[in-house]
This record gives sequence, C-alpha cells and structure tokens, in this order.
Amino acid sequence: MTAPMPKQDKAPQSQPKSQPKSMKDITALCKRRGFIFPASEIYGGLNGFWDFGPLGVELKNNLRDYWWRKMVTTPPIGPDGQPVQIVGVDSAIIQNPQAWVASGHVGGFSDPMVDCRETKLRYRADHIVVLIPKDGDENWIATADDDPETIEKRIKKVGKGKSVANFEQKLLTELDPSDYAKILGPDTKEVGSLTEPKDFNLMFETRVGALATSDAKAYLRPETAQGIFLNFKNVVDTARVKMPFGIAQIGKAFRNEVTPRNYIYRSREFEQMEMEWFCHEDEAKKWFDFWINTRKEFWLECGLKEESLTIRPHDQDELSHYAKNGHGTVDVEFKFPFTDPGFGELEGIAHRSNFDLTQHQEHSKQKLEYLDPERNNEKYIPHVIEPAAGLTRGVLALISDAYTVDPDRPSGVFLDFKPSIAPKKAAILPLTAKEDHVPLATDLYLELREQYNVDLDIKQNIGKRYARQDEIGTPFCFTIDNDTIEDKTITVRHRNSMKQERIKMDEALSFMDDAMRGN
Amino acid sequence: MTAPMPKQDKAPQSQPKSQPKSMKDITALCKRRGFIFPASEIYGGLNGFWDFGPLGVELKNNLRDYWWRKMVTTPPIGPDGQPVQIVGVDSAIIQNPQAWVASGHVGGFSDPMVDCRETKLRYRADHIVVLIPKDGDENWIATADDDPETIEKRIKKVGKGKSVANFEQKLLTELDPSDYAKILGPDTKEVGSLTEPKDFNLMFETRVGALATSDAKAYLRPETAQGIFLNFKNVVDTARVKMPFGIAQIGKAFRNEVTPRNYIYRSREFEQMEMEWFCHEDEAKKWFDFWINTRKEFWLECGLKEESLTIRPHDQDELSHYAKNGHGTVDVEFKFPFTDPGFGELEGIAHRSNFDLTQHQEHSKQKLEYLDPERNNEKYIPHVIEPAAGLTRGVLALISDAYTVDPDRPSGVFLDFKPSIAPKKAAILPLTAKEDHVPLATDLYLELREQYNVDLDIKQNIGKRYARQDEIGTPFCFTIDNDTIEDKTITVRHRNSMKQERIKMDEALSFMDDAMRGN
Repeated sequence: MTAPMPKQDKAPQSQPKSQPKSMKDITALCKRRGFIFPASEIYGGLNGFWDFGPLGVELKNNLRDYWWRKMVTTPPIGPDGQPVQIVGVDSAIIQNPQAWVASGHVGGFSDPMVDCRETKLRYRADHIVVLIPKDGDENWIATADDDPETIEKRIKKVGKGKSVANFEQKLLTELDPSDYAKILGPDTKEVGSLTEPKDFNLMFETRVGALATSDAKAYLRPETAQGIFLNFKNVVDTARVKMPFGIAQIGKAFRNEVTPRNYIYRSREFEQMEMEWFCHEDEAKKWFDFWINTRKEFWLECGLKEESLTIRPHDQDELSHYAKNGHGTVDVEFKFPFTDPGFGELEGIAHRSNFDLTQHQEHSKQKLEYLDPERNNEKYIPHVIEPAAGLTRGVLALISDAYTVDPDRPSGVFLDFKPSIAPKKAAILPLTAKEDHVPLATDLYLELREQYNVDLDIKQNIGKRYARQDEIGTPFCFTIDNDTIEDKTITVRHRNSMKQERIKMDEALSFMDDAMRGN
Repeated sequence: MTAPMPKQDKAPQSQPKSQPKSMKDITALCKRRGFIFPASEIYGGLNGFWDFGPLGVELKNNLRDYWWRKMVTTPPIGPDGQPVQIVGVDSAIIQNPQAWVASGHVGGFSDPMVDCRETKLRYRADHIVVLIPKDGDENWIATADDDPETIEKRIKKVGKGKSVANFEQKLLTELDPSDYAKILGPDTKEVGSLTEPKDFNLMFETRVGALATSDAKAYLRPETAQGIFLNFKNVVDTARVKMPFGIAQIGKAFRNEVTPRNYIYRSREFEQMEMEWFCHEDEAKKWFDFWINTRKEFWLECGLKEESLTIRPHDQDELSHYAKNGHGTVDVEFKFPFTDPGFGELEGIAHRSNFDLTQHQEHSKQKLEYLDPERNNEKYIPHVIEPAAGLTRGVLALISDAYTVDPDRPSGVFLDFKPSIAPKKAAILPLTAKEDHVPLATDLYLELREQYNVDLDIKQNIGKRYARQDEIGTPFCFTIDNDTIEDKTITVRHRNSMKQERIKMDEALSFMDDAMRGN
C-alpha cells in the first residue's frame, strides 16, 4: 500500500460472464442496503470518491477496531514467546512538505502520462495497449486501456475489418518513441498525435496559510507510513519502548489516481492500517517472516476463506525503491471478483530496510539513531518491517467473500459475515406493528443493544424483513409474536441455515453471548 | 463547529500569571508523556497541525467510541419514552465542488484580511486593534492582534513614551477605510500601508484528476455536516428510517485558519463529531431543547466537571446564516485554561432550519423532500437540529479538566480521568526487572489486556513508574513483588488517593470489573 513507485493492477480487466459473484451485483447490493454510496451522488458523483452508508461504516469500524485490537491493545506473542510491544499514533494528513521530499514522494511518486495533441486528452502511458497489425500495415492502433472489450471496440471501429487475432499487442511503454508517429491515438483519427510520456505526481497538492506563495505548498499524505517515521524520535523519547517495537496508525490517505477503478479497490481517497516494526538489521529476516504469517492469520480470523487468500512475494523488478535492499516485499492477496481466478493486493508486508529513517535523518538534520542498551549501547538506525493493509480494500474483501448466492431463499443472496465482523449482530423483529408486539420487541432491543450492535425493525411483512437481514449479513433474527405474549418465548432464525428455533426471551442475551464467543 | 461565518474566539488572549492550570504546563505534559506532538516536529513543525502520540490516540479513540455509542449504537430515549433512531455514515473528505457552492462555503466561508503594502505581510482584519492617541496625535498605531502583551510591546516601540492608558482601543473593522491613511501598520514604520479588508476563503483547495484545469478544483471539507446532507436521500431510501431520525458522522475537517492558536483548540486540521437530526418543523423546538440537555449530559458523563461547563445561547448578531430562521444556536462551553475564568466553545447545537437540504435540492435538482406517511403523506423538507462537537477540542477539554496540581506527590501533578475515558485502565508493574517478578507480571498483563487497555512497564524504580502513571491518568497500578511469589497477592495503588491495598492476583480481573462498572 505504500509503494511510492506506482504499479499496475495485476488484475485482468475482464471476467468470465458466468462469474457467480459479479462486481455489478455486489455494487448494487452495497447501494441498495446502504453499505457504500458514490460520493456526492446527487451532484453526479466525483470519480474515485465513495461514501460509506449506515452499514458500511459499521462494517469498516469493526475491521478498524479489530486491527487496532490485534496490533495495539493485544499485540501478538513474538517468536520468543513474549508479547511484542506496539503503540499507536494518529498523525496529521497534512505534514511539513519537506517530509515528502525526504520520503521520495515529491521526486518519484508519479505515473507516466501521455497527451494527445489532437484531442487534448491525457492517458496513463502504462495502460495504453498498441495493436500492431501482423500484415505489416503501417498504422498501429492505440487503446486507452487493456480491457479486452475496449480493444475489440477499437478494432471494430478503425481496424479495417481485421480481428484481434490479426494484431500483436504491445504496451506503449515497451515501444520506442520513434515509433509513436505510426500510432493512431485512442480517440483520434490521424496517426502521430501522442506525446512522449511525462511524469504526473500522484499527490494531491494544496496551500497552507493566508499567502499563496510557493513556500506554502503542501500535500495530502499518499500513505500513513511517513507520519509514523516522523514520530519515531518522539515515540522513542516518551513511550518507554525498546527495540524491537512497532508504531501503528489507521487513517485516510489520498492518491490522485489517473484512472480510479474497480469500485472502492482503487479510489482516490482511502484508508490504510499500517504498522512500522523497528528492529536491528540482524533480526529483520526473522521479523519479516513472523509478520507475514501473523498478517495472513489476521485476515483468516476476520472470516476470509483460506481459498480466497494467497501469499505472493514480489519479483525483484516490481520492488519499490525502499525495498530493494533487503528481504523484499510479500503481498497478502485476495481473490477479488474482478481478479478471479487471480488475486489482488490486500496487504503488503515490506522490508523497508532503514531507508525512511535514514532519509529523514539526512533531510531534517535530526539524529534518528537508536542507542541500544541491550546491544552494548550500539547506535543504529533500525530496519523496518511494514505490514501495510488497506482498510477500504479490506471492507471490499469482506463483502465480496461474504457474498453468497443462494437461489433457495427469497433474497437470492446473503452475506455470510463472521458474527464479530457483521455490522449488525442481531435483528429484533415484532411479527406485526401491532401494539402488543412492539413494546416487547423494544424491551429486548434495549437489553441487547447494551452488549451488541442490534437492529430493531418494526414494519413490513416478516419475509421481507428476513430478506433484508440476509442481505446485510445479520447472523440472528429474533421474532416476537403472539406466543411471546403468552409464554415469553421468541423465535431465533439463523441466517445461513434459515433454521428457526424457539427460546425464552429472557435467555436471548445469553444465547448471543454463547453464539458470539470466539466468533 | 460548522458556522460558515467566522467568529472571533470569545476568549481573552492572556491569563493571570497565578493560573494553576497553565496551557504551558499542560502542553509540556502532553509532549513529555506522548499525548500530543507538533506535526513534522523534526522539520520544525507546520503551524496549525498536530499529531496524536501513543496515549493521545487512545484517549481520542475512547472519546470517539463513546460518542458513537451514545449517538449511534445506543441512542438516547426521546421525550416520548421511545429510543430515537440514529444511523452513522462516513463520507469522503473530498466531495463534488458543487456541494460547497450549495452549502454557501464557496461564497461565504471567509475571513476578512488586510495586506501591508510595505512589508507584504497579511493580517486578519478583525484581529487588528488600532490604538488612537487620546492627545489627538494624528498617528494611530495598529497591532497584529488583541493580545495585551502585543499591544504593550508595540506602544513601547513606537508610542513616543505614552502608555496604554493614553490610547483609545478600536478594532480596525470598526473604522472607516478613509482613516486607514493615519494608521501605522503592525510591522511598519510609515503610516498608510494597510489595504482595505478583502475576503480570504478558509477552505483548502486542491485539484482532482490528471488535468489541472479549473473544472477540477476541489476542496477539503471544512465540516463533516455537509457529507451528511449529501447522503440524506440515500439514507432515507435504504436505511428504513422514519422521521424524526438522525445521521451521525465522525471525521476530519480542515480550515485554513489565518492564525491558528491555543494549541489544538484552533488548528487547521481537526476532527468533528456531528449529528444532523431531521424532523418536522413543528417539532423543531422540542428536539432542540432535547438535544441541548442530552449533549450537556454527555460531556458530564465523560467526566467533565459541572463547574467546567456552561450553556450559552448565541446572541442574534452572532448567529450563522443557516441559523437565522429558527430557534438559534446554543453552545456547550468549557472552561479552557486560556479562557478561564470564561468559557470557550466545545460543541454547538444549532437549529439549521431546512436551509441545507433546500440549498442542495435547488443546486442538485434532486428532490430531497420527505413523504411522511404519519402526517397524511405530507411532503416536506425536514428541519434540522445539529449537535456538532469537536473531537479534537474534546480531547483538550478532557486533558485540561483532568489536569490536577498536587504538590504532595513526586510528579506534582496527575490526570484525574474517569476510568472509562483514561487511555490506560491499569498498569502492571513488577517491582524489579528480576526474572521472578517479570513472568508473573506478564501473566497478569496477558489476562487483563483481553478486557482492558493496560500497560506493562518493567524497568525503572517504582516511584518513577508510579509518577508516570499519575501523569498519564492511569486509575490503578498493580505491583508484583517478592510477596507475590510467596502468597500470590499484589499491591493495588489508587491514582487519586495514592492509597495502596493488597489483593489476590487472581482477583485482579474482578477488581477491575467492579472498579470500571459505571465508570
């Protein structure tokens, strides 16, 4: 998540039509049930920005809190059998711009872009595919991206009756600029309109203070990690930490992506959960391995299925500059609907060597060395292992993984969330909105809500209300009916099996306690 | 917190020197113990931006979670004896710029600024004080702000031997621009260098997308409220809410304050906790009164002292444009050290009438009316009561209120946090770092941390460790010593009384459960 050097999504852009979990269906459910809305939708939206609705924010908060719990308040037991030490911080989104010079983002956090002289449109150079006719025709055809549909449409339009098979496909970035004269741009009619690629920085810029001079230029952070490095010295000086230890942060980050895509997967405003683990260089490999395992385990504990996850070490040539010297980077990847049968990045675990602190020491002229009493007072700039996860991406992974097509139920689908992650743990449903059902339901709601996030839903026929709870992934429904008035029993409906059982109303809380234990 | 029209801080800028709680001392403790650091401190900081350290982020999270709990998951019982309904959202910081045109922020969210032609410096017009010599001397003296120290220094420098008493003080904004020719600017030697005031918009601007055209201009939100109004229609359509109901949000907001001041009280990046309560106009007064009481109660429940809080209705002439038509605005004010003996805004409860939704309906051309089945299908744009609290300011209020000078203890001070709000609920301290104390302490730490945020602190003499826990406001310390090995008892030290008692180690968890109940 923190790579200053941009990478292409590994995911192919298309998917088989028979795909049981389609992004279209998932997006529609998220809108229909209030998980995720386009930002400023009443104004036509804003490309790359999304809002979380009532259920989305609860789901996101559950993931956020679980990460904080597993990282900061109850961090894992380390390889030596002792609990590791991790503290949290929450740094500002806008920092002194010098910090981004030191980190390499001002100089290097950019995408290569090409302009079209004819249309004035701009494209990401490494997304343009050039179709080179195998018959030797001198006109090469460019497409705006590598989506097979886009390629087919373009060939249909200007391919002189040829088909995909008649072309060799190359990325624009693989070609020599001297060949650009032959290329028909993605939206033009004449060849030779594309310029050479130019770097476009992905950081959002703003200005701080009343004077709009160039000194006041500042950036929205493109990652939360640097806010941790900036606080390294203050944390060492005040928090009674000793090497090895970690500093964790959850927060917003911003990247002015040229082509935001795949729903909330690649958006311009998103949330990260990052932890920088500081240790002596000699121990970096041990901790690197430890964190890879621990982090994959985390996602399984959130309820993601084993088969939906994979571990993928980066190839040498895709390593970020800060990860070149060391043990590399390993991604925890998830099988997103748009990557299926492949996987896409959910979290990256990188050995950043001592790159960042060294850079900040140099640029700030502040000593960032650690004096280690347990190593004969050796002074060193610690190495860093960084498990950097996407909170926004995590939410998408949780929803996609939970999305279960089931033709046997009226809703046709349910979200199979692990109870601890589900936005609502239970729904309390009076069978009718009649006055004798509602007060009992309200009593139960008031009792359960003290311990669990529960829903009280009064109106509409019970089938429709069950269907809604299925679609939002509520594990249990408690129904209050005429029998409840007589014998104080209620119906429990289980989400996955749709089975119903009868329990006493005053045992509902202990039913929940049992059901939630370890879930 | 959401007033598009800027207000001056009501607080006087100076305080008596005998003030027992000085901001200087509080700021020093916050730095020393890891609550709050200047952002990018190793680069000399950035004016108006602050980072939360390990304890600050825990304290802030506690306040954040408590607000969410009291507003969203267990909202209050309304005047009719039924629980009210409130749902959460989390909207993007960057929204379609049209939203800020509709809200009035593009046109009106500005401060009046004057420039100095001589020095090129810029000042906030409504902060400049002009000293008019009572002896009729034609040279009037301007000062950059109303701080008595600044005024005195300026008189000493250019006042020709006169004293404060020899001048009448007026705000620059009270004077006619024709008088500006007589005024000696705050940092100049010649009169007549100040320009007429010009509006300076407080929103941070940025640009979205690869093309830096004017269409792509966007803003960092200056309040979280508008993100709620933007989602009103989607929430009504998806969340099964019925009038009256609320939508709540916690998140960052940004204001390019000309003169950030008073520590984290008036910073450029801060967090808000806002709830928009939608209701029929006829019920607005009832709910306005309800929320004023409920919100003051909230701050008392967080542990703020009754005498530190006050309720202050806005005067007619300080009402924001959106609050002009209706029942006005009432602030919950807190006695901050820099306002003492006065109070400063902690939360504002405003009757916004139906201003915002009406504006968005007009600008977006989307119908934002509510069809009310319980009012004969009356269609109306609901009125809004908005309790808008500062999370960042809330943290400052909690720390200031808890800060207790106590000459009888080594630290000289302790933070008297309510246990539920304290960043750490207990500290587990082995008397020595000897091997037989540490494993027992670790066992206890591992047991307690499953339920409570606790600290394990191993090294240093015990007095210093108690002093640290006093300074960070930890209610209980558990000490493991040689007796623990013999009889499995531990010492409990109480923060406020410093009294110690002996309990069994295996009763520590139930001790905590009892102590935390209702606290």
